[in-house]
Amino acid sequence: MPNISQKGLQMPESPIRKLVPYAEIARKKGHKVYHLNIGQPDIKTPQVALDAVKNANIEVLEYSHSAGFESYREKLSQYYKNQNLPIDTQDIIITTGGSEALLFALGSTMDADDEIIIPEPFYANYNGFTVASGVKVVPVISSIETGFALPPIEDFEKLITPKTKAILICNPGNPTGYLYSQEEINQLAEIVKKHDLFLIADEVYREFTYDGYKHYSVMNVPGLENHAIMIDSVSKRFSMCGARIGCIVSKNKEVMAAAMKFAQARLSPPTYAQIASEAALETPQSYFDEVITEYKERRDILISELEKIDGVKVATPKGAFYCIAKLPITNANDFAQWLLETFELDGETVMVAPAAGFYSTPNVGLDEVRIAYVLKKEDLIRSVAILKAALEIYTKK
Amino acid sequence: MPNISQKGLQMPESPIRKLVPYAEIARKKGHKVYHLNIGQPDIKTPQVALDAVKNANIEVLEYSHSAGFESYREKLSQYYKNQNLPIDTQDIIITTGGSEALLFALGSTMDADDEIIIPEPFYANYNGFTVASGVKVVPVISSIETGFALPPIEDFEKLITPKTKAILICNPGNPTGYLYSQEEINQLAEIVKKHDLFLIADEVYREFTYDGYKHYSVMNVPGLENHAIMIDSVSKRFSMCGARIGCIVSKNKEVMAAAMKFAQARLSPPTYAQIASEAALETPQSYFDEVITEYKERRDILISELEKIDGVKVATPKGAFYCIAKLPITNANDFAQWLLETFELDGETVMVAPAAGFYSTPNVGLDEVRIAYVLKKEDLIRSVAILKAALEIYTKK
Repeated sequence: MPNISQKGLQMPESPIRKLVPYAEIARKKGHKVYHLNIGQPDIKTPQVALDAVKNANIEVLEYSHSAGFESYREKLSQYYKNQNLPIDTQDIIITTGGSEALLFALGSTMDADDEIIIPEPFYANYNGFTVASGVKVVPVISSIETGFALPPIEDFEKLITPKTKAILICNPGNPTGYLYSQEEINQLAEIVKKHDLFLIADEVYREFTYDGYKHYSVMNVPGLENHAIMIDSVSKRFSMCGARIGCIVSKNKEVMAAAMKFAQARLSPPTYAQIASEAALETPQSYFDEVITEYKERRDILISELEKIDGVKVATPKGAFYCIAKLPITNANDFAQWLLETFELDGETVMVAPAAGFYSTPNVGLDEVRIAYVLKKEDLIRSVAILKAALEIYTKK
Repeated sequence: MPNISQKGLQMPESPIRKLVPYAEIARKKGHKVYHLNIGQPDIKTPQVALDAVKNANIEVLEYSHSAGFESYREKLSQYYKNQNLPIDTQDIIITTGGSEALLFALGSTMDADDEIIIPEPFYANYNGFTVASGVKVVPVISSIETGFALPPIEDFEKLITPKTKAILICNPGNPTGYLYSQEEINQLAEIVKKHDLFLIADEVYREFTYDGYKHYSVMNVPGLENHAIMIDSVSKRFSMCGARIGCIVSKNKEVMAAAMKFAQARLSPPTYAQIASEAALETPQSYFDEVITEYKERRDILISELEKIDGVKVATPKGAFYCIAKLPITNANDFAQWLLETFELDGETVMVAPAAGFYSTPNVGLDEVRIAYVLKKEDLIRSVAILKAALEIYTKK
């Protein structure tokens, strides 16, 4: 029997993968499971997007342009310009989700064994994309003590080697909910210019910011044009995760020419989903206002309820819809398994994502979990009540 | 300014990319261009697939399972079983087009600098996927003289090194239209078993065979279960190129476990397109009968018209909807450019794909072009008439 690849062996599993069978056990016991572990919003997709697909008059479901519909790219450029992002049509290639945009960005800028510096905890699938691309993640630890602010820029500088090609950030952050300040982005801009690196920014949660904090994009930094690569997606913005539409954005023409060759090899992004995504740009502002208000309320309730639990520490997120909570336990994975396998409060339990899976450094964040606030408020309140009751028992074991 | 990757520089352009500006010139002159160069069928997508999307009741466009809808995989397994392919639900992962399936297959079986042997001429995007995956193509030349039959198996054996991990075939072939016989598949099966390699078969044109020839799949070879990986797609079968739905199929559980990790990293294949693809399985047999009859007639007309031109040699395709034609010229790229830039017959011209782009070995196939017979019969007749008139002038230049 032939051997599979080292890549195939090294590809990480999702941080919650090992918990899935235990969620199944909970369900088989008849327990209701509140899913705090996933980022699938319950928010309705804008009707204008759904209707566009329903009303599309298709006879032959053809390939689109490899860079995506031109009409979509033009409108998307205008959407960005309305948000003060100076992005032209030719700076955009439509991709199959933010996932593919990141794969194109890595492929266009990095070769086998090159290094990319990423503040951790970070979106766990970055591990998968870097393994798939044959490149090496060099993590910089950020800490719950500082609310996951940007680590000191010297920490980055110490890690730069001749193999370093890029720094990757997620802003606002999954799993931290941290929003980088303009000053922090400028620090990153200076260091990538000084060392001739790329700054890849996953900005798919851009619109989700709270408390008056404003998102500052890498595309807004003067003089960073040849270094900045933005990753974007419709998944969270329009609650269209299943569309699988994103884009890679850069002013660097060599990067875009390389990304275009990756795009041509896979022919085109999905046509139906582009129809929905293009129409979604017509979504009225009231939709976003309602969604942001909803998420802010959820966040406030989640954080205030969590903070009532003895020994729980949580960094208040400024954006996105995740937070990291530090629990009074030693191993969040064991705890998450026990929650599903053994615990129940009146027939209900919760599923959380152990945060260790979001760190690249081993044995860090073992007492932390990621909680996504994509459930409605009463479910969040109930979930935290369950968590509290569970911790009371678990910490006495 | 930071340097882009070597990968980015090495990523090949599409064989027709350089011709696109000349097609633009022809259009600007007001010339009608018959596109013999592309594989976008003009056949209508089955109504049952289009209707399923129109009638889908979606409120939140959610992620699907990373392996694709379970209901779709179950029905697809049944579809294969009806075609005598012993494929179970768990042997299937739904992908974003055959493109992604091939990327998963390469990622799961090969590491940087590993080698994959491919009979050439081959589908040009294999070059892109191998560069993206960091692996090396080792070509085996097949020839128009034998109708692009499988090269002698000794030719493969000579090229096997400790780095060789797989042999990749496209069956029926794009760009050759050649259909491997059961005996040829068995020869390949023996050699991959002997040297412990994978046999990856791109079978996306499986249903398109003519003259009573039957497709023999790598999934049908007894004892090949741990070596065989099948790549499939709905693109051509249901004229749904824009759906971007395919699948990777294997009985090798390690390969499928690795492929599943690649699938999880990118979350899920597109939801709308899966709805269309699942419904497309209900397409009545009469649709395929009509489509195959149409393609067969097109092929017959194309080949007989081409053979009437002095100095043209063409290998009659047994499947798919492409053929390679050898022309009485020395450089098909120059000729293709001249056709667009300079030539016209009553205000009309043709665009062909120079075949050199389908060979990995330099300076092979320079006098060959690939012709796709995805146009209606009268357009094919007219196209060949234009080609004939053009060759008469061009060969006298």
